[in-house]
Amino acid sequence: MTAPMQISGFPEYTPEEQLAFNRLLDAIRKGYERFGFSAIETPAVERQESLLAKAGDENEKQIYALARLAAKDNEDDSTGLALHFDLTVPLARYVATRQDQLTFPFRRYQIQKVWRGERPQAGRFREFYQCDIDIIGNEQLSLFADAEIPSVIYHVFSEMSIGRFKIRISNRKILQGYLELLGAGTEEESRTVLQIVDSLEKVGTSKVRTDLLAATSLTDEKAARLIEFVTYDGDTDAILAYLDTVQPTQDSEEAGEVGERLKEGVYELKTVVASVRALGVPDEYLAVDLRIARGLDYYTGTVYETVLVDHPGLGSICSGGRYDNLAEYFTEKKLPGVGISIGLTRLFSRLVQAGIVSVDRSTPSQVLVAAMNEMRMTDYFGIANELRTAGVNTEVYIDNKRLGQQLKYASRKGFDVVVIAGDDELAKGTLTVKDMASGDQKEVVRGDLVTAVQSILANR
Amino acid sequence: MTAPMQISGFPEYTPEEQLAFNRLLDAIRKGYERFGFSAIETPAVERQESLLAKAGDENEKQIYALARLAAKDNEDDSTGLALHFDLTVPLARYVATRQDQLTFPFRRYQIQKVWRGERPQAGRFREFYQCDIDIIGNEQLSLFADAEIPSVIYHVFSEMSIGRFKIRISNRKILQGYLELLGAGTEEESRTVLQIVDSLEKVGTSKVRTDLLAATSLTDEKAARLIEFVTYDGDTDAILAYLDTVQPTQDSEEAGEVGERLKEGVYELKTVVASVRALGVPDEYLAVDLRIARGLDYYTGTVYETVLVDHPGLGSICSGGRYDNLAEYFTEKKLPGVGISIGLTRLFSRLVQAGIVSVDRSTPSQVLVAAMNEMRMTDYFGIANELRTAGVNTEVYIDNKRLGQQLKYASRKGFDVVVIAGDDELAKGTLTVKDMASGDQKEVVRGDLVTAVQSILANR
Repeated sequence: MTAPMQISGFPEYTPEEQLAFNRLLDAIRKGYERFGFSAIETPAVERQESLLAKAGDENEKQIYALARLAAKDNEDDSTGLALHFDLTVPLARYVATRQDQLTFPFRRYQIQKVWRGERPQAGRFREFYQCDIDIIGNEQLSLFADAEIPSVIYHVFSEMSIGRFKIRISNRKILQGYLELLGAGTEEESRTVLQIVDSLEKVGTSKVRTDLLAATSLTDEKAARLIEFVTYDGDTDAILAYLDTVQPTQDSEEAGEVGERLKEGVYELKTVVASVRALGVPDEYLAVDLRIARGLDYYTGTVYETVLVDHPGLGSICSGGRYDNLAEYFTEKKLPGVGISIGLTRLFSRLVQAGIVSVDRSTPSQVLVAAMNEMRMTDYFGIANELRTAGVNTEVYIDNKRLGQQLKYASRKGFDVVVIAGDDELAKGTLTVKDMASGDQKEVVRGDLVTAVQSILANR
Repeated sequence: MTAPMQISGFPEYTPEEQLAFNRLLDAIRKGYERFGFSAIETPAVERQESLLAKAGDENEKQIYALARLAAKDNEDDSTGLALHFDLTVPLARYVATRQDQLTFPFRRYQIQKVWRGERPQAGRFREFYQCDIDIIGNEQLSLFADAEIPSVIYHVFSEMSIGRFKIRISNRKILQGYLELLGAGTEEESRTVLQIVDSLEKVGTSKVRTDLLAATSLTDEKAARLIEFVTYDGDTDAILAYLDTVQPTQDSEEAGEVGERLKEGVYELKTVVASVRALGVPDEYLAVDLRIARGLDYYTGTVYETVLVDHPGLGSICSGGRYDNLAEYFTEKKLPGVGISIGLTRLFSRLVQAGIVSVDRSTPSQVLVAAMNEMRMTDYFGIANELRTAGVNTEVYIDNKRLGQQLKYASRKGFDVVVIAGDDELAKGTLTVKDMASGDQKEVVRGDLVTAVQSILANR
């Protein structure tokens, strides 16, 4: 008989960690609902063929299939089902199968675990939470949807109190359009260029320049111009003004529509920025960043990343963007959308490591009612009932231990208040209310219990 | 390209259903926290050997194993992992492996999906939510823990507003003790008797009597006495008083300790009932019911069931009890506990079918801000920001549609209020606030927006 160890890659928290984790989860959920996103939840499994339709090679290797454990050796143990590896495939399947039930634009949030059979390594999980929002249009979707996403992000991360953060925003059409101006706008070439540009923050400009020259048809001069373009430095208004100055160059003018894509991207970006400001996002939380490319094959317009200003090493903690077609594998109908995803499990683990989130209590209760005399338990239960009815989370100590040990228990679990009522106090009709943070305690008449407790809690 | 159908046995809800489901889930969670239970969450998977240690034959057949989907034919696709089929095995493993981290008595709640590969049939699910609470002691656990459980149930089901319910309570020692008095207290015989008694409500007394005579050594007279005993009718105090009159019979007195178990059971039941009353549970929500046997092999003391008074056909919607040893498969340490489980997925499906839970809106937002002029979107976003800052869930309509269509959208999704601001109103500094329930609308100055909206919402 040996207690099994934790399973590598499948995180499991102490009650203290879980409480801190759930606080973040609640902030996300509350934020999503504040903006009118409806919750949906899909099964943990999808049909294998649904997952494989969308999965790239990397995802496919990581899929966990469901098999019947009790199948005999000569029986087929397969179920045709597998655990989902993200929430995008399930969303696509959900919307495609329920087109007639849903009201468009369909604003949904979805907070669920997903599973990937990755090689376990630091910061990688096989089971983790994704917290997604998307706005899905029926055939078309207003650009204003793109503006709402950063304001949700701003609201959620402010609620979470995890320090300063910056929402980086760009529009894929700008970079793509600029490449077309440079004459490097073919599909294959621009894919290569964008992958290289995407690494700019990590590897630096000189490495990017070398890579561009080695892997693309860009001349030295054009590579320099591209780098200058994407790294143009300034506040939001300065970058938007700079974008207006970028004109089609001489040698690409014959291409007719060249320049149109860039103009469209700039227009979209400006509209989105103006709306984000109207939605109350302060400028210091927003940064236009032309380097952001993010998944060329999927995103087609606005793209987002979010970084913690004081912890740039964490990378993007929330990413997403605009896409043209959510569910092309499941329906002929065009379903454009825009959305973001927060990978909370990884974020939480980094926030705890960095000391940004404190893990310091294990009880959701504010008050512990001490048990001074086992014969008076019904009195203690009555006190607890009064507090709970007033909306105060309350626990009654149920073991037969000395007060000192009960106070130790209270302090270990993180109660804010301990209510003490010995025989004398019960006879007099009073109670002692102890503030665990300050150590102060005072005797109050029984009728003042709720007020006395609430006044301590109000100072938390 | 065909959109895949839903997977049989894996429930998935419309946004309207999900909102109603989540409201119940929140009531459960809030209730559990009100009583000081700490959240834990375990991975969806456990090692197969952990699950098999506890699983009965029935469970074992239903376990879903995890296999690597991408494994080649000649490769081993097994992971050694499987989806948990309940939350009890994970709890046992959790407590056993974390004895030194946890503070005892350990009060935990756990709300997660579990999976069972059952044959799909009405009311049976392969993926469903369990919502469990348990209080676990280290070597011993106070009887007062047993008293808290029904008060949590009372609180939770009251919050859920699902109509009248009754918490049935008994103590396994009473029935077991009475069987010993009757001379039918051997382990094997009492197991048979209890299974028969457990069917009493379903099959009626005469069938139970026939079954008892056929399957046990009980005489006709003793079978009659047993049936009389378990069906003794009266309110809680009457049954408790009746229990005091039940004395050891002449022919079992030589057995020495016989009668002790019955006395102990009666004492425990009385203590629990007195404490449950002190915890504010009204008598009409409580019923002592001596027929309740529930899982002879696991429960050892107090047992609970809960039924909806107006829907007895649903059966028990929440069951549990006291057990001696949570984690005997994982640790030498004795971990007695008491707990209950709500199977929310099944309960929800029955509540919706019975029309007890209404499924009538799909948005968590109270307010829709209509979009009257696409050029004024930043104004609408500003209005929404003001409402959200005041804590009101708000959506801005982002499509370019006529007001009539926007109002239809609002009514279909279930908004309480629509805020309308055309060019004229924006120029004057006013807004129109429309109460969707009554159809009333009035013009207010911009500064009164939040107050006007809140006064409509306050009447919901």
